[in-house]
Amino acid sequence: MTSSTLLLPNYVAGRWQTAQGSGTPLFDPVLGTELVRVSSAGLDLNEGFTFAREQGGRALRAMTYRERAVMLGAISKVLQTHRDAYYDIATANSGTTRKDSGVDIDGAIFTLGFYAKQGDALGDARVLIDGEPTRMAKDPTFQSQHVMVPTRGVALFINAFNFPSWGLWEKAAPALLSGVPVIVKPATATAWLTQRMVQDVIDAGVLPPGALSVVCGSSAGLMDALQPFDVVSFTGSAETAAVIRSHPAVSQRSVRVNIEADSLNSALLDPAATVESEAFKLLVGEVVREMTVKSGQKCTAIRRIFVPAHLYDAAAQAISAKLAGVSVGNPRNESVRMGSLVSGEQLAAVRAGLAQLRAEADVLHDGATHALVDADPAIAACVGPTLLGTRRPAEARVLHAVEVFGPVSTLMPYDTLEDALSLIRRGEGSLVSSLYSEDPGFMANAALELASSHGRVHAISPDVAALHSGHGNVMPMSLHGGPGRAGGGEELGGMRALNFYHRRSAIQASTAALEQIVASGQRLVL
Amino acid sequence: MTSSTLLLPNYVAGRWQTAQGSGTPLFDPVLGTELVRVSSAGLDLNEGFTFAREQGGRALRAMTYRERAVMLGAISKVLQTHRDAYYDIATANSGTTRKDSGVDIDGAIFTLGFYAKQGDALGDARVLIDGEPTRMAKDPTFQSQHVMVPTRGVALFINAFNFPSWGLWEKAAPALLSGVPVIVKPATATAWLTQRMVQDVIDAGVLPPGALSVVCGSSAGLMDALQPFDVVSFTGSAETAAVIRSHPAVSQRSVRVNIEADSLNSALLDPAATVESEAFKLLVGEVVREMTVKSGQKCTAIRRIFVPAHLYDAAAQAISAKLAGVSVGNPRNESVRMGSLVSGEQLAAVRAGLAQLRAEADVLHDGATHALVDADPAIAACVGPTLLGTRRPAEARVLHAVEVFGPVSTLMPYDTLEDALSLIRRGEGSLVSSLYSEDPGFMANAALELASSHGRVHAISPDVAALHSGHGNVMPMSLHGGPGRAGGGEELGGMRALNFYHRRSAIQASTAALEQIVASGQRLVL
Repeated sequence: MTSSTLLLPNYVAGRWQTAQGSGTPLFDPVLGTELVRVSSAGLDLNEGFTFAREQGGRALRAMTYRERAVMLGAISKVLQTHRDAYYDIATANSGTTRKDSGVDIDGAIFTLGFYAKQGDALGDARVLIDGEPTRMAKDPTFQSQHVMVPTRGVALFINAFNFPSWGLWEKAAPALLSGVPVIVKPATATAWLTQRMVQDVIDAGVLPPGALSVVCGSSAGLMDALQPFDVVSFTGSAETAAVIRSHPAVSQRSVRVNIEADSLNSALLDPAATVESEAFKLLVGEVVREMTVKSGQKCTAIRRIFVPAHLYDAAAQAISAKLAGVSVGNPRNESVRMGSLVSGEQLAAVRAGLAQLRAEADVLHDGATHALVDADPAIAACVGPTLLGTRRPAEARVLHAVEVFGPVSTLMPYDTLEDALSLIRRGEGSLVSSLYSEDPGFMANAALELASSHGRVHAISPDVAALHSGHGNVMPMSLHGGPGRAGGGEELGGMRALNFYHRRSAIQASTAALEQIVASGQRLVL
Repeated sequence: MTSSTLLLPNYVAGRWQTAQGSGTPLFDPVLGTELVRVSSAGLDLNEGFTFAREQGGRALRAMTYRERAVMLGAISKVLQTHRDAYYDIATANSGTTRKDSGVDIDGAIFTLGFYAKQGDALGDARVLIDGEPTRMAKDPTFQSQHVMVPTRGVALFINAFNFPSWGLWEKAAPALLSGVPVIVKPATATAWLTQRMVQDVIDAGVLPPGALSVVCGSSAGLMDALQPFDVVSFTGSAETAAVIRSHPAVSQRSVRVNIEADSLNSALLDPAATVESEAFKLLVGEVVREMTVKSGQKCTAIRRIFVPAHLYDAAAQAISAKLAGVSVGNPRNESVRMGSLVSGEQLAAVRAGLAQLRAEADVLHDGATHALVDADPAIAACVGPTLLGTRRPAEARVLHAVEVFGPVSTLMPYDTLEDALSLIRRGEGSLVSSLYSEDPGFMANAALELASSHGRVHAISPDVAALHSGHGNVMPMSLHGGPGRAGGGEELGGMRALNFYHRRSAIQASTAALEQIVASGQRLVL
């Protein structure tokens, strides 16, 4: 069979290159139709990486932080211009509702704008000053001054299928601001949106040659092309993360790596809460939102819900009642609140994962009962939201270890706060935990208790109910990442994101020499 | 044959445990006599790690930064009390002169004192406040505040043979100050000094149970015992580093890892220097010092010397003349300036490495010409300092890639500063580069050029000649580590060392809750 869909070109070594072979097709997960194809076969990756490293790196490092910030603003404008096309691609290729597409597309534009603004404040410097000069002895003539300078390599992003837009730009914004060229390899299933955005930005001519490249299709050979001063940032499965960490580029050449992998994120209701309390209602609302936004395909989504034991039944009823009202199906139908998963493969993975969890849990609300709106159950990768529950969470193993990447969450009761904290830590490191309480003292204490096992703690109280950014929304001013199972990485966190793309060095010199360095640089304020 | 030397006990799970088997003997590298034996066979490492993680971690986290700083001061006092015994062990087991032993022993005591003082300034807090609160929207009621809290795991140190004392305490000081229990596995060849120091500190009762453990002998099973919130810090060969990075604890459980490995450190003489200049003399003196201190067994030692091409012959003569005057042999003889290598194995490795380098270099001063003082060449692991040189450094490969861990360095000429920087970067990431010049402008520019490939740049000018801390001396206020071949790690750097033992988390909450957190914590100032 000859396919008539477009084989998307890759942008490598400063030119558009159509790879060999007929490529891998991308599909509409609701309609089942083929959309485009991708292939990276036969590309000269070493040429591409060298071009980015040498041409792109040199050009970016020659610019100041302010100039690079202006460049981010220009990227943001290009994306805004083509915004409608991106929504169309998202609907077709990701099966998302307009609102869910916005999380990915407008989230990217917002993040670019954030770093454009923050970067502007760094001014006309090319080096960041890290801390104060420190005397090496009593005499003030010889001192140590730490600096941060951009790494002289490329930033390779191997990205996940759930955020083809935001996943690129939340990483590229701090990389480009730091002066480091970007090579992005989007997940194949949803690579189209990433490829189109790169194409629009390249066509607009707002970046120097070599600053941005895109490789769609297989990731074969990408890691082999990495050199000691390069960095790699991966978002995806723990299995692939282990392969990346064990690759000689990382294990032998010390390529710096950032990983964001599986996560059994949690929500915790204050032990003092009652069924009538605002905290209880806030928990129920947030859980339903997190389960359904992007059909639960968010690495930050709530997977485990911890409530005081006496509220277990009430929480099960309240959450199930709201889930029952969620319409599922074709995102083109305006009555649909939850679209599809990104692919039939993901649907099969969610069903397999659900079967694993059900071995340890009861079904409190069954997603299979949801009739699909405007979608053929034999074709569409749609699935209703499922709430599971167990009355014996301490005995569970799979529920604390297996992330089902869809609209699935498990309710668990606890006796004491100490028990709850211990159960949450059974996740062995997560991206985020959210707290629901009316007591600032409880929030402060519980947040500090959970901080060592979470990259972010999100505390929702009635006074911020209308203001807060959401358990699962990743905002650029806060750290994104988590220890252990979550991969151990750190992204975003405002200007902390620049750390990954810079090298720290201690310069020990005469005060006269250090004064020249400090005068030429910009002190980073967090 | 039954051996009569002592089998050193390990301190694991809060008790002294003599392992199974007859153990591996440690030798005097000058006299060839057996000193003690070590073994870790049959130890229940999981019990030991769990004890440290639970008992040690809980006790340390219950203390404030100030209380832990006082504890470091107490360790320092214990070590000072037993200082003479440590010098005796160093002479016997490391073959070092009194001065070289001091770098290891007094360097440790100084570093502990530094962190005791710095830690005291953190006061009675148990959490570090990282940056200012940031509004999540226009309304000031909901904000994000980053914090740093101690990781709830152990810190495993797998250490190198060249610094059995400093190598433990430069890592343990920031770990214990952070509230993280330490398990140290010293390199077998020189494990005695580490074991004795731990024994003295344990016997003195200045640490809570589980805060410090020592395992001597084989490292088998240590990595397997690591859990997601543990960290591991390794100093040693690139080969072992790759094994550690690929271990499932790191690749699958995201155990945080810090590596300090091989390094082709360099010294760079200003292109404007003349043979009469102070800069030239300072370079010659520092190169000779770095080649001979601890018989060149320092990961920071100068391995490549870059001079303007017209000064190549003059530098070769000046360095060789000074090296010729270096007496080598038994460190017990007061006329000896340079003792032995740590073992016959190391002597064989240095000879093999020299043969590799000589394939690309001329011998400018041959260490083999040095007669040994008070030492039998058939037994003692002594070797004279060797200066190599090549007139075509751009064509060399091995000289930029193979570190010979002994009194060996290679002189290389350069034409332009750009050439010199490019040649230095051929090391693919080093711990330190030193600059020799009278011009603060040259120092500032060259230091910034080299910062991205070096953890430290050390600039020596005549005004700091009598003050500077030395190219190879690692001072606690400056970063120690380097990208690429150097392993990609970061140690010390003043309070930056605490980062490795803390977890960063963004707490998004009402301003009321955040105010309680900030009030309970201490802001870290660098």
